[in-house]
Amino acid sequence: MGAFLFPQTPSGRSSLIPSPPWHYSGEMITVEYRTDPSNVEAFLPEGAKLAGEDPGAVALIWADWQSCGDDFAEITDPVLAQYKECFAVIRCDWDDQTWSRCPFIWVDKDFAMVRGYHQGYPKKLGDIWMTRPITVGKAGPRLEAGGRFGATVSRAGRRIAHARIELTEPATSPGFVNGHPMLHNRYWPAIESDGSASMTELVTMSGYDGEVADVWAATAQLDVFEAPNDELALLEPQEVIGGFYHRVATSWKSGTTLRSG
Amino acid sequence: MGAFLFPQTPSGRSSLIPSPPWHYSGEMITVEYRTDPSNVEAFLPEGAKLAGEDPGAVALIWADWQSCGDDFAEITDPVLAQYKECFAVIRCDWDDQTWSRCPFIWVDKDFAMVRGYHQGYPKKLGDIWMTRPITVGKAGPRLEAGGRFGATVSRAGRRIAHARIELTEPATSPGFVNGHPMLHNRYWPAIESDGSASMTELVTMSGYDGEVADVWAATAQLDVFEAPNDELALLEPQEVIGGFYHRVATSWKSGTTLRSG
Amino acid sequence: MGAFLFPQTPSGRSSLIPSPPWHYSGEMITVEYRTDPSNVEAFLPEGAKLAGEDPGAVALIWADWQSCGDDFAEITDPVLAQYKECFAVIRCDWDDQTWSRCPFIWVDKDFAMVRGYHQGYPKKLGDIWMTRPITVGKAGPRLEAGGRFGATVSRAGRRIAHARIELTEPATSPGFVNGHPMLHNRYWPAIESDGSASMTELVTMSGYDGEVADVWAATAQLDVFEAPNDELALLEPQEVIGGFYHRVATSWKSGTTLRSG
Amino acid sequence: MGAFLFPQTPSGRSSLIPSPPWHYSGEMITVEYRTDPSNVEAFLPEGAKLAGEDPGAVALIWADWQSCGDDFAEITDPVLAQYKECFAVIRCDWDDQTWSRCPFIWVDKDFAMVRGYHQGYPKKLGDIWMTRPITVGKAGPRLEAGGRFGATVSRAGRRIAHARIELTEPATSPGFVNGHPMLHNRYWPAIESDGSASMTELVTMSGYDGEVADVWAATAQLDVFEAPNDELALLEPQEVIGGFYHRVATSWKSGTTLRSG
Repeated sequence: MGAFLFPQTPSGRSSLIPSPPWHYSGEMITVEYRTDPSNVEAFLPEGAKLAGEDPGAVALIWADWQSCGDDFAEITDPVLAQYKECFAVIRCDWDDQTWSRCPFIWVDKDFAMVRGYHQGYPKKLGDIWMTRPITVGKAGPRLEAGGRFGATVSRAGRRIAHARIELTEPATSPGFVNGHPMLHNRYWPAIESDGSASMTELVTMSGYDGEVADVWAATAQLDVFEAPNDELALLEPQEVIGGFYHRVATSWKSGTTLRSG
Repeated sequence: MGAFLFPQTPSGRSSLIPSPPWHYSGEMITVEYRTDPSNVEAFLPEGAKLAGEDPGAVALIWADWQSCGDDFAEITDPVLAQYKECFAVIRCDWDDQTWSRCPFIWVDKDFAMVRGYHQGYPKKLGDIWMTRPITVGKAGPRLEAGGRFGATVSRAGRRIAHARIELTEPATSPGFVNGHPMLHNRYWPAIESDGSASMTELVTMSGYDGEVADVWAATAQLDVFEAPNDELALLEPQEVIGGFYHRVATSWKSGTTLRSG
Repeated sequence: MGAFLFPQTPSGRSSLIPSPPWHYSGEMITVEYRTDPSNVEAFLPEGAKLAGEDPGAVALIWADWQSCGDDFAEITDPVLAQYKECFAVIRCDWDDQTWSRCPFIWVDKDFAMVRGYHQGYPKKLGDIWMTRPITVGKAGPRLEAGGRFGATVSRAGRRIAHARIELTEPATSPGFVNGHPMLHNRYWPAIESDGSASMTELVTMSGYDGEVADVWAATAQLDVFEAPNDELALLEPQEVIGGFYHRVATSWKSGTTLRSG
Repeated sequence: MGAFLFPQTPSGRSSLIPSPPWHYSGEMITVEYRTDPSNVEAFLPEGAKLAGEDPGAVALIWADWQSCGDDFAEITDPVLAQYKECFAVIRCDWDDQTWSRCPFIWVDKDFAMVRGYHQGYPKKLGDIWMTRPITVGKAGPRLEAGGRFGATVSRAGRRIAHARIELTEPATSPGFVNGHPMLHNRYWPAIESDGSASMTELVTMSGYDGEVADVWAATAQLDVFEAPNDELALLEPQEVIGGFYHRVATSWKSGTTLRSG
């Protein structure tokens, strides 16, 4: 059958995700901070080492997306297009390059969760909320100095993180931690469940046709909470670097397997 | 205690809703259509009659709101600020004026549900989704001719309505059905549950500091589905008048009791 | 129209709740504990005073219900029949009797929320989870000594309370705090929102045809967490009295207005 | 690190699923029916053929589970233990044996979704509801002749199936369609997204320590609805065979790879 993923049907329409390319348009709230570099080190893939510069830097990023396949069908049935996510990004050096890497990520729709597995993101379901900027009335911030935003992520009824940012001035880039090609592991254990793997890959991926707009720098506060099964607190903030709001778009078609087995 | 509503605590912070004024900023997708006027008539309050002009006109409106009390606290904890709703609006004549009236409405947060009860809206919980316009990338419509949006409402796992609109040109107003002061019943049965009422009022209310922007006219398609406990199909569409997208803000402080008992 | 509540339609089928009687069958996990009596006092209705005996006693009760109207229609469309709730109960003396009273309650369905308003419960939406006893396999406790259960309530992505109980022996009654007729306020502000009320009542209610089975006493642990808008921690536990599991059924037809205005 | 699955942390506690064995206790509502055998044929793995006997038989099964890892930790934090699912089962002949196979399945928790991927189930998120039997009061069926149950599954706000059963008499087995070892495909596309696969396996699996109790036969009605992205209607019912209620437990440790690549 022609489906990109399961469930497989003759039409392919039941597949959790359509064939790439996938298109994304959304907005992001970012907090960059420093943790102890040894905390970052614990999440690096085999053979990688801490980034030479600012090795303890972490970005915690909230995104509110609209996404779709290449026929744009989801756009007019928006329950299938919209989702929110919150993800942590760290950096590492491997093979003479610097990479970004995602150790934790929560999303609120199944298609986004599984699309993430294809790309190497370790997605779980969570509840994610982000303040949106407004252009009419009073119930929210404007994209102007002093605009105040909040962003939260919870799972299983426990709050994991709460960020608050206040815009200060336009910026040229929304941070440096999430700026490299991603270096991800794709892993699936064998059904024998004996420690052997059916798939164990080191992959990289990037989007294309990226677009960034309305980038604002911000001051930021970040609270990260202990949760027994969602250990974001392993990357506990020691010092906030700063915050950002921006709009962003990208398309995604494929990645590259760097190492397999 | 000083709480506006229950649960009552000394601080008032547990109240489902803070004291007014409440502020709202959001966007709306509207489909206006005609049903048989007798369908509208079945939803009028005692003493009211069909509007003289276009008596079978109905607006089905989706709204994606950010809202807050007068200290704006919810804005940075956005799970408490954001909600979506879908509501039907009809018109009637009463006491020599024309009024708007809401016979069905679904929302996705408890605070919005109960705030609606205060204002006379017969709110239930539902799942509401609306396409959002974008300014970067491809995953959504631009606010320009040809921009295509969808909007859906479901309750209890059954889809109740699905609208699709395509923008045609800027407009000066987002329709005529939802343009009058609201004429609502507020009703609560006595705990004796014997047919007597503890509260039975005819009220009216409007917002203040209203603001409207980015109004676009659109062609529209609307499907309304039978659901045993959500009888929006009693207002079944016979002819679509047109659609609209717009941004909107309002504040709300109080209404007026027109008739009690 | 003949609907018990809004939305009003000719058939009455869209009403959030059908006319009473309502029937309930379910199971409960209870933790009884003591807080400082002054904490209880802050939640008493005007004119009531602390219970003479054990005035600081509180019950925190989780319930997993199936419920329906008198035609039992919801039973075969169970999304409309099933709901879970968590509620606190305190006691007070008023008019020479002892009463139970509910200052906080969270439920997970709209019909249960609004049915509660009719009865005077100050309901909010929350996420409620309770371990269920099993009769086959290993994934849960048996109704026998040593059976371990957990129960949690969260709202807006924040955990409010987490109880754990371990069954010790069969018991004759599931506690003493929730054992009196309820003494509740029913309150709705006037739409003028000026501090005046459209409905302000002191009411009492009880179920009928009550049935209790499989009552087990238990040891208990209870954690109550601070949450800015859900101040259950105002009734903070100082000493756990004990826990209970039991099955319970009741029907409800009406209450009595004790005082109005 | 020692985690069974991602997210990988040193403690393994953030893993979406713990290492097997996993234990399950729950209850099921089953409707067995016949569709045109060619509908079944479209879902068979390469090399398999229709079952020799009753080749068009399908079981649509709802399950309400409590589950946990081998340390039983989830049981007292039940948001992590409980989930509901609805799945279709067909049969086929392959390699001189008869197998069961699951072409469609919806669940309501992330850990269940991903545990299913490990076992070869093509899981999506959905909303699943099942009537529960009661032993006190009136709000539900007893496990006795005449007991009436309902079961529904929805996804993305659209109802996919609604079953109603009425118990007739105790039975010795809850149907024949879901009674064989499962024959599943495990598939993951390469990140190159070019049609090549990183994992493509034919696997089989069964539970152990199975336990079945309270099996009742029933008459059944089944409605399956068209949904654009959830094509259960490809297995449309032509004739209902019958229904069942039963309690069930199982443990799961591993499966076997039958064919890889």
